[in-house]
Amino acid sequence: MKGTDLSSTSARITAVDTYDIRFPTSRGLDGSDAMNPDPDYSAAYVVLRTMSGGPEGHGFAFTIGRGNDVQVTAVDALRDHVVGRSVAELCADPGGLYRDLIGDSQLRWLGPEKGVMHMAIGAVVNAVWDLSAKCAGKPLWQLLADADPAWLVSQIDFRYLTDALTPDEALELLRRGRRGAGERAAALRRRGYPAYTTSPGWLGYSDEKLASLARQAVTDGFTQIKLKVGADLEDDIRRCRAAREAVGPDIRIAIDANQRWNVGEAVEWITALAPFDPYWIEEPTSPDDVLGHAAIRRAVQPVKVATGEHVQNRVVFKQLLQAGAVDILQLDAVRVAGVNENLAILLLAAKFGVPVCPHAGGVGLCELVQHLSMFDYVALTGTTDDRVIEYVDHLHEHFVDPVVISGGCYRAPSSPGFSATMHQSSLDTYTYPGGTFWVTDAVAGTSGTPMEVDA
Amino acid sequence: MKGTDLSSTSARITAVDTYDIRFPTSRGLDGSDAMNPDPDYSAAYVVLRTMSGGPEGHGFAFTIGRGNDVQVTAVDALRDHVVGRSVAELCADPGGLYRDLIGDSQLRWLGPEKGVMHMAIGAVVNAVWDLSAKCAGKPLWQLLADADPAWLVSQIDFRYLTDALTPDEALELLRRGRRGAGERAAALRRRGYPAYTTSPGWLGYSDEKLASLARQAVTDGFTQIKLKVGADLEDDIRRCRAAREAVGPDIRIAIDANQRWNVGEAVEWITALAPFDPYWIEEPTSPDDVLGHAAIRRAVQPVKVATGEHVQNRVVFKQLLQAGAVDILQLDAVRVAGVNENLAILLLAAKFGVPVCPHAGGVGLCELVQHLSMFDYVALTGTTDDRVIEYVDHLHEHFVDPVVISGGCYRAPSSPGFSATMHQSSLDTYTYPGGTFWVTDAVAGTSGTPMEVDA
Repeated sequence: MKGTDLSSTSARITAVDTYDIRFPTSRGLDGSDAMNPDPDYSAAYVVLRTMSGGPEGHGFAFTIGRGNDVQVTAVDALRDHVVGRSVAELCADPGGLYRDLIGDSQLRWLGPEKGVMHMAIGAVVNAVWDLSAKCAGKPLWQLLADADPAWLVSQIDFRYLTDALTPDEALELLRRGRRGAGERAAALRRRGYPAYTTSPGWLGYSDEKLASLARQAVTDGFTQIKLKVGADLEDDIRRCRAAREAVGPDIRIAIDANQRWNVGEAVEWITALAPFDPYWIEEPTSPDDVLGHAAIRRAVQPVKVATGEHVQNRVVFKQLLQAGAVDILQLDAVRVAGVNENLAILLLAAKFGVPVCPHAGGVGLCELVQHLSMFDYVALTGTTDDRVIEYVDHLHEHFVDPVVISGGCYRAPSSPGFSATMHQSSLDTYTYPGGTFWVTDAVAGTSGTPMEVDA
Repeated sequence: MKGTDLSSTSARITAVDTYDIRFPTSRGLDGSDAMNPDPDYSAAYVVLRTMSGGPEGHGFAFTIGRGNDVQVTAVDALRDHVVGRSVAELCADPGGLYRDLIGDSQLRWLGPEKGVMHMAIGAVVNAVWDLSAKCAGKPLWQLLADADPAWLVSQIDFRYLTDALTPDEALELLRRGRRGAGERAAALRRRGYPAYTTSPGWLGYSDEKLASLARQAVTDGFTQIKLKVGADLEDDIRRCRAAREAVGPDIRIAIDANQRWNVGEAVEWITALAPFDPYWIEEPTSPDDVLGHAAIRRAVQPVKVATGEHVQNRVVFKQLLQAGAVDILQLDAVRVAGVNENLAILLLAAKFGVPVCPHAGGVGLCELVQHLSMFDYVALTGTTDDRVIEYVDHLHEHFVDPVVISGGCYRAPSSPGFSATMHQSSLDTYTYPGGTFWVTDAVAGTSGTPMEVDA
């Protein structure tokens, strides 16, 4: 497993190619929840080209259909910052590009550090880390676990963080995390990292399908499943009962409202579902509402409160921790500005002692987040207690290094990179609107991304 | 002043035209601050067409240069929600479209309710209000002040708000606000609404220019000016001293750090500038940091804390008020999802008793926010005490109904609409990159939007 060493060459980024990739997932109600009835899982996909035959950096933002073109345009707006850069310099210091991108004052106005522009930066920054890990010949989790703690600290932007986490504190956490890392890396390769599955619980599924998939999940070795809730309380009571009956008392059942409620509604609804012993309530209200989450958490204990997949940046995560608003922090690999910002988020969580259970699913999110959790286990917190990575069994076949799940665990990736690379054939087929799937679909007369939304 | 009545016709929106408008403001260091050294004030401009000769709805998002194309693409992504809609129905219920736009679950993923996609929704929603006010033959402030309180409440989305403001409370505030509205409307037309000016204080200006413009501001009738700070403390001390000496002890001097600091830095810096009696410190840290603003406010009293121009939505404003994090709420006409969301923000501020002093400047922000403050005075809070609208003397010549300032006050607009309409000749000249200014500029060989940023 030797990487292609570009670090001693004068190789440069020659192109930043973008793709609008959309999968017609809405047709099976896969991914349906109380706020997102008909997602077409999509990726604003980016490839950093170097030279013919050399390694490439792959990354993407995840969206759910309409607007993926806006996301692609945002990635395109970063092109001039990247083309012509030295590959060796990028790989030696991805944080340099990260800082340039979030520091471009004109583009910053479009956030700042949130939404479309921030996710675009995340796609490009993650592509640099993919390239870096490929050049190093290591899977990203291992590159991070092997890295000098001081260098990792240099990759973080501490602006707006120092009231909660200073560079010195981060360095100390990382130095402590390194003790015993070798043994934990070996254990990780042997046992993998615990997962939970959301596949049984989509809102569009029948009770029978839900119960059958829940039983299958237990058979497959999962110790936690998740159900979508929040559209109709009577339905939710029925579905939670069906799930609890299917899996028995010892399997954790998380529930996920996808931001559906006001604070008061959240408390009432969760109280009504409490008899089915939900382990956590995920996204009970707006991801922006730090104080709202804190109020809900106080009211629904011992049900735990979780959020993060839509938390826009490290500043909001910082406050969720400062306010005691969450029991579980659900980072997302592509919502924030990539690995650099997620390093800050992992360190904040470690400082506050809150377990990280990453959001995954979508397009390639499982492939990416596993690296972050595995780094956290091997070289930061040193534990997987009460930590699980979400797993959804969708769309992995489009990736060159898909996740491998067995016995309810993610197996540690061994291929160099960030597992972000999609098959060229998938790009060719699902590029919107010109890919072969969508062209054929248009000819057949069905609507790929219906404009009617009946939330 | 009679509007063109389309309400009884079957008129529909026939087109949503967008324009990428950029002004080369960076060349004079107008608008320069500690985070934005070289803004090219820009607008993602949108026109809702109805029929030949009929009224049009105009709106825009404001950006500062690069990325304005991303913003335009985001407005374009909303087109299918708008074209074909009945003008009468839109004007009778702008909130219907507002809810459809923020409720489009696929587009919602790109925020939710923040950044590029949210500002695009604001541009379109504001254009509907412009159309509505034109059809009613009233300036927007008057349309709002004349409206039935129950109808105004129906225009607000209370999701995520009810722990701080219920529909019943909003209705009561609006009903109380109506008492004496006629007298206040007459007073407003006579006296105008107080303004303050930022024109003296851009960071790129010399001390001499600063002092001269500050003295001129006092001569012109302003009782408050604002200085940009945050790049260099010694410079700031010198500049604050020069400004204080120029205007004397009775003129309020606000200072604005444009998000430059961590919490600790903010407290130290503001303390160092306290001898010059700053009235408020604006954007001391990240606009996302509710708890950080609260900590700074506790530490720097009696200097007031102000923020809002980058506050992404009503949920963050709610928390700033709940946490006691701000003395002054600076709403922006185009950062959030338009008039509907700003009605919620004005009501939240009224409930918590915090004065609203809107952010303005940029492209057309003065033109828009004056309507919101004037409505607030006439039919909500009933006062202008400690309330001032920012005024910057830039780019008004491009608007058909530019703001009129005299004696340090905004004069009440009388033309129907939201004052958002730009001259066609300005659109033709400053469309990027094809407008005559930019084509000529490219031929001359100077760079319109330089890629180098030296923040």
